[in-house]
Amino acid sequence: MRYRLYYWPEIQGRGEFIRLALEYAGADYVDVLRQGGDFSFPKKQTPFALPCLVAGKRVISQTANILLFLGPRLRLAPRTEAGRLWAHQLQLTVADWLTEVHDVHHPIGSGLYYEEQKREAKRRAADFLAARLPKYLDYFEGVLASANKGYLLGRTLSYPDLSLFQMVTGLRYAFPRTMKRLEKRYPRVIGVQNRVAQHPRLKAYLGSKRRIPFNKMGIFRAYPELDG
Amino acid sequence: MRYRLYYWPEIQGRGEFIRLALEYAGADYVDVLRQGGDFSFPKKQTPFALPCLVAGKRVISQTANILLFLGPRLRLAPRTEAGRLWAHQLQLTVADWLTEVHDVHHPIGSGLYYEEQKREAKRRAADFLAARLPKYLDYFEGVLASANKGYLLGRTLSYPDLSLFQMVTGLRYAFPRTMKRLEKRYPRVIGVQNRVAQHPRLKAYLGSKRRIPFNKMGIFRAYPELDG
Repeated sequence: MRYRLYYWPEIQGRGEFIRLALEYAGADYVDVLRQGGDFSFPKKQTPFALPCLVAGKRVISQTANILLFLGPRLRLAPRTEAGRLWAHQLQLTVADWLTEVHDVHHPIGSGLYYEEQKREAKRRAADFLAARLPKYLDYFEGVLASANKGYLLGRTLSYPDLSLFQMVTGLRYAFPRTMKRLEKRYPRVIGVQNRVAQHPRLKAYLGSKRRIPFNKMGIFRAYPELDG
Repeated sequence: MRYRLYYWPEIQGRGEFIRLALEYAGADYVDVLRQGGDFSFPKKQTPFALPCLVAGKRVISQTANILLFLGPRLRLAPRTEAGRLWAHQLQLTVADWLTEVHDVHHPIGSGLYYEEQKREAKRRAADFLAARLPKYLDYFEGVLASANKGYLLGRTLSYPDLSLFQMVTGLRYAFPRTMKRLEKRYPRVIGVQNRVAQHPRLKAYLGSKRRIPFNKMGIFRAYPELDG
């Protein structure tokens, strides 16, 4: 199966969570809009927003929903329904976290420029870094402590681990001072980040041109004035 | 199967999307914290936040994930994987929409009072009502137009229709002036709201004490200064 991923070609954004799963699994896929393709995918079950994955006749949207679909197919999720729902529950919590990261620099409106909401962004950043960021990190550290085998679901890596890798990597880029201060409290979360980064296929991907650099159009943005 | 729902007893909030599915289906359930129960549910696969559903040995969290689980069991989702993913995709879009409704009155931090972020809330409300609300309504109107059989997935009601009912009902409470102005453009969305409200079991539920009234602690809040 050759998967076709549709996502904005200039940013990692939400599409990166799909790219990481496809790359880690060594799946056959086309990142259509980065490879000169256009938006001419079937418009049935029309997406509200990208990313959108086309798999044969299937057209699937919403990041977590795409991963729900891909998980068992890429061997990145358990076989049992209970295991798949637990992986998905973790993924949906990552999705909430990511939305909060986005809203740090866009607290008023996603259609406005950052410069138009800078003052509000400073207030939101202070609240996010003091209250919400530690709450999410505490949560995932606790899940890893309960599982106690190195990955969120236990001994075997699943797609939420790849997403946790992306969160830590993005947060380090966006909030280097705060992350430096916080990281020592979260050895298990940082352990997942390290191990994913060292996986041979992921390492090759991260060093390739397929990995779009972080930038000031994406979800993770390095505005020093927002970093505590 | 007797389901046990754990959610804050003072508000509709995210729990209401689960309550509506259980009530519509005539399921056997206990709304534990409203019926004098406490938080002593099994803490395995620990939730980041409520709602949490206990079903036998299963403990499931994240609203959309709970509905993914309940959908086929309550006959509120299609049997096929493709149909279930499409229903879930719509539910995840409702979840994004609901988060934006919440952030209208809490653009800076969910741990702060509304009164501490009133000025920012006014700006965010203006953007939400002018840009985001019509975008979501357009989207669901379009899905209903494509399906062209009265409900989001076609002829048969599925759980995202119940969630769409709740969105319209809540938005009418929170933004009566704006909704009055907008509604005529969305006859199909309003049609779903009407038909769900008239369903015998739902009608009985909505008229009962089990339906918590809207209030200023929930997600939908009537602050006239935010209503356009």
